[in-house]
Amino acid sequence: MSAPHVRDVPIGLHATGTRTESDSLGEIKVPAEHYWGAQTQRSLIHFDIGDDRMPKAVYHAYGYIKKAAAIVNARAGRLPQWQADLISRVSDEIIRGELDSEFPLYVWQTGSGTQSNMNVNEVISNRAIQLVGGRLGSKDPVHPNDHVNMGQSSNDTFVTAMHIAAAEAIDDHVLPAVSRLRDAAARKSREWKHVVKIGRTHLEDATPLTVGQEWSGYAAQLTDAMDHLERTRGGLFRLAIGGTAVGTGLNAPPGFGQEVAAKIAELTGRPFTSAPNSFAAQASCDDLVRASAALRALATPLFKFANDLRWLGSGPRTGLHELILPSNEPGSSIMPGKVNPTQAEAMLMVAIQVAGNDSAVSMAGAEGNFELNAFRPVIIRNVLHSARILADMMDHFRTYLVEGARLNTEKLHHNIDHSIMMVTALSPVVGYDQAARIAHYALDKGLALKDAALQCGISADLYDKIVDPERLTRPGVPSPDGGTRR
Amino acid sequence: MSAPHVRDVPIGLHATGTRTESDSLGEIKVPAEHYWGAQTQRSLIHFDIGDDRMPKAVYHAYGYIKKAAAIVNARAGRLPQWQADLISRVSDEIIRGELDSEFPLYVWQTGSGTQSNMNVNEVISNRAIQLVGGRLGSKDPVHPNDHVNMGQSSNDTFVTAMHIAAAEAIDDHVLPAVSRLRDAAARKSREWKHVVKIGRTHLEDATPLTVGQEWSGYAAQLTDAMDHLERTRGGLFRLAIGGTAVGTGLNAPPGFGQEVAAKIAELTGRPFTSAPNSFAAQASCDDLVRASAALRALATPLFKFANDLRWLGSGPRTGLHELILPSNEPGSSIMPGKVNPTQAEAMLMVAIQVAGNDSAVSMAGAEGNFELNAFRPVIIRNVLHSARILADMMDHFRTYLVEGARLNTEKLHHNIDHSIMMVTALSPVVGYDQAARIAHYALDKGLALKDAALQCGISADLYDKIVDPERLTRPGVPSPDGGTRR
Amino acid sequence: MSAPHVRDVPIGLHATGTRTESDSLGEIKVPAEHYWGAQTQRSLIHFDIGDDRMPKAVYHAYGYIKKAAAIVNARAGRLPQWQADLISRVSDEIIRGELDSEFPLYVWQTGSGTQSNMNVNEVISNRAIQLVGGRLGSKDPVHPNDHVNMGQSSNDTFVTAMHIAAAEAIDDHVLPAVSRLRDAAARKSREWKHVVKIGRTHLEDATPLTVGQEWSGYAAQLTDAMDHLERTRGGLFRLAIGGTAVGTGLNAPPGFGQEVAAKIAELTGRPFTSAPNSFAAQASCDDLVRASAALRALATPLFKFANDLRWLGSGPRTGLHELILPSNEPGSSIMPGKVNPTQAEAMLMVAIQVAGNDSAVSMAGAEGNFELNAFRPVIIRNVLHSARILADMMDHFRTYLVEGARLNTEKLHHNIDHSIMMVTALSPVVGYDQAARIAHYALDKGLALKDAALQCGISADLYDKIVDPERLTRPGVPSPDGGTRR
Amino acid sequence: MSAPHVRDVPIGLHATGTRTESDSLGEIKVPAEHYWGAQTQRSLIHFDIGDDRMPKAVYHAYGYIKKAAAIVNARAGRLPQWQADLISRVSDEIIRGELDSEFPLYVWQTGSGTQSNMNVNEVISNRAIQLVGGRLGSKDPVHPNDHVNMGQSSNDTFVTAMHIAAAEAIDDHVLPAVSRLRDAAARKSREWKHVVKIGRTHLEDATPLTVGQEWSGYAAQLTDAMDHLERTRGGLFRLAIGGTAVGTGLNAPPGFGQEVAAKIAELTGRPFTSAPNSFAAQASCDDLVRASAALRALATPLFKFANDLRWLGSGPRTGLHELILPSNEPGSSIMPGKVNPTQAEAMLMVAIQVAGNDSAVSMAGAEGNFELNAFRPVIIRNVLHSARILADMMDHFRTYLVEGARLNTEKLHHNIDHSIMMVTALSPVVGYDQAARIAHYALDKGLALKDAALQCGISADLYDKIVDPERLTRPGVPSPDGGTRR
Repeated sequence: MSAPHVRDVPIGLHATGTRTESDSLGEIKVPAEHYWGAQTQRSLIHFDIGDDRMPKAVYHAYGYIKKAAAIVNARAGRLPQWQADLISRVSDEIIRGELDSEFPLYVWQTGSGTQSNMNVNEVISNRAIQLVGGRLGSKDPVHPNDHVNMGQSSNDTFVTAMHIAAAEAIDDHVLPAVSRLRDAAARKSREWKHVVKIGRTHLEDATPLTVGQEWSGYAAQLTDAMDHLERTRGGLFRLAIGGTAVGTGLNAPPGFGQEVAAKIAELTGRPFTSAPNSFAAQASCDDLVRASAALRALATPLFKFANDLRWLGSGPRTGLHELILPSNEPGSSIMPGKVNPTQAEAMLMVAIQVAGNDSAVSMAGAEGNFELNAFRPVIIRNVLHSARILADMMDHFRTYLVEGARLNTEKLHHNIDHSIMMVTALSPVVGYDQAARIAHYALDKGLALKDAALQCGISADLYDKIVDPERLTRPGVPSPDGGTRR
Repeated sequence: MSAPHVRDVPIGLHATGTRTESDSLGEIKVPAEHYWGAQTQRSLIHFDIGDDRMPKAVYHAYGYIKKAAAIVNARAGRLPQWQADLISRVSDEIIRGELDSEFPLYVWQTGSGTQSNMNVNEVISNRAIQLVGGRLGSKDPVHPNDHVNMGQSSNDTFVTAMHIAAAEAIDDHVLPAVSRLRDAAARKSREWKHVVKIGRTHLEDATPLTVGQEWSGYAAQLTDAMDHLERTRGGLFRLAIGGTAVGTGLNAPPGFGQEVAAKIAELTGRPFTSAPNSFAAQASCDDLVRASAALRALATPLFKFANDLRWLGSGPRTGLHELILPSNEPGSSIMPGKVNPTQAEAMLMVAIQVAGNDSAVSMAGAEGNFELNAFRPVIIRNVLHSARILADMMDHFRTYLVEGARLNTEKLHHNIDHSIMMVTALSPVVGYDQAARIAHYALDKGLALKDAALQCGISADLYDKIVDPERLTRPGVPSPDGGTRR
Repeated sequence: MSAPHVRDVPIGLHATGTRTESDSLGEIKVPAEHYWGAQTQRSLIHFDIGDDRMPKAVYHAYGYIKKAAAIVNARAGRLPQWQADLISRVSDEIIRGELDSEFPLYVWQTGSGTQSNMNVNEVISNRAIQLVGGRLGSKDPVHPNDHVNMGQSSNDTFVTAMHIAAAEAIDDHVLPAVSRLRDAAARKSREWKHVVKIGRTHLEDATPLTVGQEWSGYAAQLTDAMDHLERTRGGLFRLAIGGTAVGTGLNAPPGFGQEVAAKIAELTGRPFTSAPNSFAAQASCDDLVRASAALRALATPLFKFANDLRWLGSGPRTGLHELILPSNEPGSSIMPGKVNPTQAEAMLMVAIQVAGNDSAVSMAGAEGNFELNAFRPVIIRNVLHSARILADMMDHFRTYLVEGARLNTEKLHHNIDHSIMMVTALSPVVGYDQAARIAHYALDKGLALKDAALQCGISADLYDKIVDPERLTRPGVPSPDGGTRR
Repeated sequence: MSAPHVRDVPIGLHATGTRTESDSLGEIKVPAEHYWGAQTQRSLIHFDIGDDRMPKAVYHAYGYIKKAAAIVNARAGRLPQWQADLISRVSDEIIRGELDSEFPLYVWQTGSGTQSNMNVNEVISNRAIQLVGGRLGSKDPVHPNDHVNMGQSSNDTFVTAMHIAAAEAIDDHVLPAVSRLRDAAARKSREWKHVVKIGRTHLEDATPLTVGQEWSGYAAQLTDAMDHLERTRGGLFRLAIGGTAVGTGLNAPPGFGQEVAAKIAELTGRPFTSAPNSFAAQASCDDLVRASAALRALATPLFKFANDLRWLGSGPRTGLHELILPSNEPGSSIMPGKVNPTQAEAMLMVAIQVAGNDSAVSMAGAEGNFELNAFRPVIIRNVLHSARILADMMDHFRTYLVEGARLNTEKLHHNIDHSIMMVTALSPVVGYDQAARIAHYALDKGLALKDAALQCGISADLYDKIVDPERLTRPGVPSPDGGTRR
């Protein structure tokens, strides 16, 4: 067939009522204003379950796959150039999100994602047909299976799209947001580098540290989580494409997977390659299971960070209140003037949701059988959901809580002045047992530590030399002469 | 203040641009076409996280609460009747879903749900103001806190709304759908009551049973799960309303919780009552945690049911294929003619999602502190999500898989004819050890069981009397004379 | 065969080296000092995995089953009385734990529990043989399969033993321990009925309540969890016994399951009955999944209780410290005099473990196939583990933390005196907006609430009439005349 | 004090009754035959919960820490050489497991692990005292806190011991076992490289592949899981040691952590270093959370592998039965001659347990507060449990299932001969739609694919050239001339 004339028709079908489309099970009516075909329509009927739609990012990723495959197929002479150009053109529309409304399918569908792949194939077919002035549903001159899906199966392409979408979500949204939050924590750590505060272990008073040290811990936890996520998401760059139905590559030429992966890499600017073992790549979702676990492992330090901040901010009169949290909104419908650590609460809830999502991903990841993991939609739904809410949440938490947090220095000083656990510094000098006696004496009598120490026979001079809160925030063994060996 | 004239203004604000609203933190611009006020707007800005919106069912439930509270307040003379009538009227609009677009807040917000409560208060206030021709944002003559929220706190009302919404979702959607699916399984059980099939334990051939017996198991599992869910959701009928800020009932008159709960019961036709201990009711979400676990405990037998059906339907040529599943849609973009157990796969994924959701609910349920569980939004989101996808999925699974499933009687007969495990019936007569020898002999020699038995010295007469597949599907001990003691 | 003479030989085999035992796969050496036979030995070799042994409680439960089955079999004339007596006698030894060392098998074995059932059958066989002076391993005159296992399969008996063991653990250990802890909390609630304290929501200062009210919440949560567990464990009383291999009851006479269940009920004093649907009872572990979820739902309020107590006890100088926890042990190897909320921490860890265990149970419960759930050992291991650590932990938590906890009344008073949130009581009188202004004024200026109120124009008289902490702990709407409408 | 004479007293205290020991809370009786002191005894009393003991591997790891710390302290002159030698000597006994019976504490104890650290300190103290002929309990001349714990806190050492123990478990047990199992799968893959079998997707017949290809997928999944675990456990080499109480290093000299970590590296031959941020290292268990997730991510492909094998082995007469599994033991107490996939079932259960354990670890990992994660015992328990059962299980699964598995070539051939899905190869030649018609025709008429193809107008010559099962296992696009473009 010679190349048909391509007209510059804007997206949109100005028809009403229904149109007849067909597939191997026969004919079916579809809404005339939509590009999708028979298989999409069947899925809409059979899987109208809940409100969860397949994330659009999966379709955008499919845009890259269909375009790359068409280019590779044309280059090898399997597809006329004009067909490839048409497919590429519509794929670009998909990538730009211009056809989002044509992808209505639900998450709870076939476990392979075939229906979403066919949705893409059908939409490209009909949009291409529109562009050349053909008859919608005729599959001519661009057939959804024979041309758009050429050399492909849902079994290799859908998990390929999952990898692309997840890698993008992590790279473009999650990692930058962690980095920004980590930097914000590090800035606070530097800002409060020399502010001494009481440490707490088991929630109980412990030896002092600086606020900057405490916040350096938050920053370090985030750095580690970010590094781990970055390393782990490397597996997502390995694409199943080329394995077709069961991993053997039947109906795709040798090297097809490598070429398409290289083209996708070029189009996306990311280091995608062909998966080293296509059987593993299609029978499992292990790389996504690991990525999900790495997202959960990011939620873990975020939970701790947010939890600490809401406790440190508790008060204003009867809590710890070492930290003054920004007042973003009234906190209570009944208690006037109340301000709550709402960003921290939202973060804790997001972290919990991510853990729940990950639990689902892990279960689904284990359930593959033979040549296919048929639990893919629930996996990609949860991975993308976790990535999305984590990224957004980190930015909000940073903007509306971390960056606006201030120290309550009065409270910090008061706590340092009244704590007893600085007795620890006496321990290397007077021995643990004597130091413990001093501490218990202070508690029992309700004394300040110094008063207790003096009443227990420690000289004021020795006490003052050793028990210096600021010095206690650095390594060093207090010595009997009142110095500290560092 | 005397009752203002109420005009019959349809819902809708025909303004553009912004309007100034205020709360205790000051003024803020809100979109002029919406009813919500300052606190809703602050939440929209501070919590624009992901795509998860607070489920509309929560707001519909709030409609009942605000209406019931207004009626009770008016009855006691705390609120003029005309104010109560206005609040009731707008509450009815909320209950009917007519104001759904006015509730835009995200799930990831304050852990108490205060912002959603204030969203309701603000919308009722402004809509009421519109109805009496007042100035939006003036809080006059219906103040969001002083009137709409009278005698209430988010701390008691939000968890009340959660209970109402969850109870409705379970009662109106989940339980009926289980019942329908159970009935469908029971019908199949009766239909196939006398069809003998090979049993399988450890996936390995075992003694026979009837298809009807197998399906009676599915039905029984569903009955048990349904009964448990029904019993467990009883806790949801206990409402926290009346405890106000911390459970003491401050700013609500004595008996307020009981009266409002009774009114909600009357309005909804459900047996709601006041929670026996308001401190527990506000500091925990234990009833919802238990309801979520009961939903997961329903997902468990559904997983097994769907998993069995997809395996029994596997084939068509090289699988078990005792069951012929309906061909709802083409199964593959590359393999022509392929039909897959897609409804079963969707069910398995839904069951996995429900388990993940429940895991989040359980974690969130444990994290309350002191007088409040501040993890409520994540809890109600997951409970309602689980309820929704379970209910929808059960109906689809029933309609598109269970009801259309047919038996492959040829395969069933073939399997019965070739199985060896009917040797079990010989065991009480010849002893376990001799029976085991016959079985191993049949396997090693590739013989039919009867041939093996005869070669091992069993008489054909005895064999035929004892090894009757149909008789083996009923209790009874085969006896040496070839009879069966029943 | 006539009844052999039974000799009163104490338990114990005084042999060394090995003895030859056999099963349908042939001969195998077993340690001569043990009663077990070939199949136990094979399992020991093939499943020497980790340190997790099948809990002894499962074997004790099996004692009841074997005894009951023998009695029922004898009564019906299928088993000579002397054989039944022998089996009963050894079963009693098992029930009393006297043969515990003969049950060495691992949890990670066959998913049906067959190896543990055969372990029981073999031990009873050989111990019976010893009692009548026979030759160990001869299976004569008591055969492990033909006699001890008569009318039974692992497929019905193992899950029956799981139900018995789990029901006993819950009834004898968990429920009494919850009840004791609940009673202890209730006692504290009564003791501290009139002690006013500041409430906390979102960790932030809220309106006051009494310590007794707060603790009534803990008690109420435990009561609810206990009731739910009690109701839910009802399913465990339904026993699979009688279904034999696949639920049909093949090789067991009609009514066998009912009779054995009734006998087990008689022997144990618990209301065991035969499961209504034996196919469901063997193909699933749904009752155990629900029981596990109910144990997790008990862990939820325990987590909250323990978490609250450790926070309330935090200090001694810079924490909330409203509660003084018992000093059970030194808290630090380096910080002298430190006391930590260790019982609370242990409880939190136990609650987390129970949630993890339950997650495993739920997954395993979904994975049954066809006529058998072959994930039983991991289910019973986790259910019994959860029950055990919960029961023990609750007793320790009660004894070493709850009962010894004392109030820090000085701190409680100080907090009440300094809190601002009692402004809430002014709200019904002066309106939410004015009340909010007073609260913000107090915070901004660092004033006591009363001073702020007065400076904002509230009269001292009105203030004193309305803002009475004790009165704020009860329902009631403050009125403009300074009274409270109750 | 001058160096006392050290006598070569073998381990063991030949005393009966009790001995008085003391700590800062006073005196307490301990069993005279044990080395432990007062704090161990208090923990035994207060935490006698369940059967879960702190894993011995934690104490062995502590042996390295105490020895390394003593050496470093002596080198710097803070500890006399003879004291360091004594501590080192006893530490070596601990490392060799010779003092295992002296470490009786439970998992459910203080969340910091202080009691286990003190258990080590006390045992070393008293054993050293014994060696120099001193009085047990005198803490002279080796004091548990002042000398054995010098420069240390539980807060830095316990998590250090957790890292050492977990790293060893993973390195010495898990990784080698995965490697062995992966190699065994790879051997099977090579052995069965050319055996063609029917592929299965959605459990339904699909295009063929070789058995070797299928098994290459199992091997590849394990390789990936192993690589990920290896990378992830890298974080365990970073030790908290040196941070002491809250991460500041108070009472330890500068550089102490680095020196001790280097010494531990030397003693263990592993690349341990000092954690880059001691505040993060003590306030979190993030590295262990990630390691646990990596263990779960190994369980995922193991679940799939085991699940596939049990299904492929199902039968012997009515299942898939393409694989013949080894007969390790009789499978049924009632069904003679039954053989079950027990190793696969055990593996599935282990994988489920690991997921449950990981869920607990993740929750516990999030719950740290301020300067300490006080949920350490539950974390190390679950990580070591998962590592242990995974390692053991993989070896058993390999030995007793994988290595003995044989192909049922007859069944494989039969399946290839009867499958219809090879129609896929016709698709590129005749188009998807025509290929689908052939497939449906074959199914509807019960025909072999070739017969159906011929009746639908395909020439026998073309069919035979294209539909060659062996050729279909390799990439390549069938062409109209019957060739395949590769």
